[in-house]
Amino acid sequence: MAGLKPLKGMRDLLPQQQIRREYLFEKIKEVFRKHGFDPIETPAIEYWEVLSGKYGAEEKLIYRFQDRGGRDVGLRYDLTVPLARFFASNQGNITKPFKRYQIQPVWRAEKPQKGRFREFYQCDIDIVGSRNPLSDAQIIITIREALRELGIYGFQIKVNHRKFLSAIARHFGIQEREVEFARILDKLDKVGLEGIEKEYMEKGFPKEVIKGIMDILKNPPSLEEIVEIIDNQDSLSAYENLKRIFLYLKKTGVEEAVFDISLARGLDYYTGMVFEIVLTDVPIGSISGGGRYDNLIEIFTKYPVPAVGGSIGIDRLITAMEEMGLFREFPSTYTDALICYFNMDEKTFDYAMEIKGRLDFMNVDIYSGDAKMRGQLAYAAERGIRWAIIIGEDEISRRTVSIKDLKRRTQDEISIDELANYFRTSK
Amino acid sequence: MAGLKPLKGMRDLLPQQQIRREYLFEKIKEVFRKHGFDPIETPAIEYWEVLSGKYGAEEKLIYRFQDRGGRDVGLRYDLTVPLARFFASNQGNITKPFKRYQIQPVWRAEKPQKGRFREFYQCDIDIVGSRNPLSDAQIIITIREALRELGIYGFQIKVNHRKFLSAIARHFGIQEREVEFARILDKLDKVGLEGIEKEYMEKGFPKEVIKGIMDILKNPPSLEEIVEIIDNQDSLSAYENLKRIFLYLKKTGVEEAVFDISLARGLDYYTGMVFEIVLTDVPIGSISGGGRYDNLIEIFTKYPVPAVGGSIGIDRLITAMEEMGLFREFPSTYTDALICYFNMDEKTFDYAMEIKGRLDFMNVDIYSGDAKMRGQLAYAAERGIRWAIIIGEDEISRRTVSIKDLKRRTQDEISIDELANYFRTSK
Repeated sequence: MAGLKPLKGMRDLLPQQQIRREYLFEKIKEVFRKHGFDPIETPAIEYWEVLSGKYGAEEKLIYRFQDRGGRDVGLRYDLTVPLARFFASNQGNITKPFKRYQIQPVWRAEKPQKGRFREFYQCDIDIVGSRNPLSDAQIIITIREALRELGIYGFQIKVNHRKFLSAIARHFGIQEREVEFARILDKLDKVGLEGIEKEYMEKGFPKEVIKGIMDILKNPPSLEEIVEIIDNQDSLSAYENLKRIFLYLKKTGVEEAVFDISLARGLDYYTGMVFEIVLTDVPIGSISGGGRYDNLIEIFTKYPVPAVGGSIGIDRLITAMEEMGLFREFPSTYTDALICYFNMDEKTFDYAMEIKGRLDFMNVDIYSGDAKMRGQLAYAAERGIRWAIIIGEDEISRRTVSIKDLKRRTQDEISIDELANYFRTSK
Repeated sequence: MAGLKPLKGMRDLLPQQQIRREYLFEKIKEVFRKHGFDPIETPAIEYWEVLSGKYGAEEKLIYRFQDRGGRDVGLRYDLTVPLARFFASNQGNITKPFKRYQIQPVWRAEKPQKGRFREFYQCDIDIVGSRNPLSDAQIIITIREALRELGIYGFQIKVNHRKFLSAIARHFGIQEREVEFARILDKLDKVGLEGIEKEYMEKGFPKEVIKGIMDILKNPPSLEEIVEIIDNQDSLSAYENLKRIFLYLKKTGVEEAVFDISLARGLDYYTGMVFEIVLTDVPIGSISGGGRYDNLIEIFTKYPVPAVGGSIGIDRLITAMEEMGLFREFPSTYTDALICYFNMDEKTFDYAMEIKGRLDFMNVDIYSGDAKMRGQLAYAAERGIRWAIIIGEDEISRRTVSIKDLKRRTQDEISIDELANYFRTSK
């Protein structure tokens, strides 16, 4: 029966999963705020006109429908196009450079695969209104710091410049097919050198052009070398720009950044620096990416507005952190202790409230069901609550509690006056 | 041009608004966790089958469409029906009583009005799987504490029991029209006594029944009196149940709770205790409500699962807090300080990074645009950043910074070694 399950391609998040996710969001937001980003939100539903023509072939994955007023609308596909629309809608209230973070779900009607869902969160930072390469660097620096704050150290930050790809296209005389050239190049990680060579052939790129491209990819040039190989205006401006960005990265200690001429990034709207962060210890692929897009916002504003941004893929990140064992000691509940009782009479309730008051620095639940003591203890264990604080008539009259530590499997009877201290030292 | 604006009835949230909202969510979550609630999330889109038949006449407000696979689906209308479906879908992984909080947007195609939007957040707690009146009390206690944590003290918690309404209906021999009777009663706050008297007449309720109802509403009985007036089985069980709930509330210091026989709550699915929280100092109406619904989850599980819950209306709460002046000193940005510079050369960047390192307990932005000093200071002021930390050649060579306090309109030049201390004491 369909009605019992979440919609195909969607999923529920149980407490254990949602607690991990909340932890990630809180940590990441903290770092975003540290670097001068402020939050915004945009509606889940946008006019179709806002979304259409921005995503190329992927447009068919947008959830599109008519709202109750017959308006042609669609669900948010990413956070970048809504940001562009937001910027145009709110120009009068925005100071440039506008540094915003946004953490909201997006919807894509993709073929459901393992670990891929049709609803997932994006976690974006962008700087709108600056061409300063410092802003490009700030995006990478901030995302890198967020990863490190989460305990992730093994990664590489691949950096390239879209203008190098223009430079290569122009160099080989295929400037009209630059977007196509870049889209195929973007598949390098998935299909390998032969794979893209094959596709360039199938698409009818000239043989000598393909050979030229392959020669570059087989012996990837350094940032210094590329300008020698491809000597034109695009190449030079990309070089100057990336050199500056790398300088800022190096001075900030971002050792993970490497120049990679093969990095293309799928989306068409990038115009400058592009980057992608790949984990080196876990085979999970890219967990973050972004770049500069100086022509997108103009579609809405009708005047040029430069912008640069990046996105963290929360779901992949969680999977990676699970594989790295970073959640090994992670709780499946926020509740530290459960007050269990034999009989909920007035005296017991008063005593439970007194205990809760003394432990107000912790998350303490009072058992709210109808089970007997044994069931209450089983409930605490199943939820992953570490401590059961047991109160019976004896405890109440002695002004004590019995504490079961369900992790260490110990039990103590201690005075209510020592309760706070007991937990302060054993937490 | 439609494309420039958010969809009709929807809205963007600017940093100033989103910062307030994040503050509310963080405070509220903290209280929810304190009382033993854990978070879950459910998808925005559900099978139509899940949503249909649960909301009565309001069903027409659901955003309904076909997904890309031709499935009949709808956007989440509230968080209660998704919780019921969630419980049924995940029974094997859930321990009862299941205490969950959920903070997610919902969508309703309502007529846009001032302060009413078609997308808004709900903020719910529920306890599934317990008939224990302690769980009813925990819902009210937790929400009340969340309000107080936000600095809100002037409110009344109206409490009633759906079975009292059944009792009245049976007493007057209109038990077949109980739902209709309750729905009209629910409008009392909006249309007054005469208003509902008129509607009962229009709907053809017998004259002596209307008179009887009016007599009760004109001299609202206390919890003790109601059982004397309406002496039947429904009335007695509601009395016993509410008495217990009020006992827990009183012992927890919830002085704001009052019995109110006229409280009905619009939704049909309530079966027991119902409550509503109304602000007394601001004319903004109800900011929270909820109750017991023992028959809803059964639709999905096919066996009875009792439940009780409540919801906080975040948007109204923010409006109320604004009117109460609770946001008067609230920042419009998370950024504490902006590093401003005359010329971004290598030495300046190094110095800026040193400053950022020393102030890592604060949110410090480095200006990332292309404006000169004057523009940078104007930018700081417009974003509401309190401090501008100015570095020029002089400052760098003297190992100092110039600090402009944009709030107090003062300027100091201080040594970089005293920087951290300066902010630690003036924050």
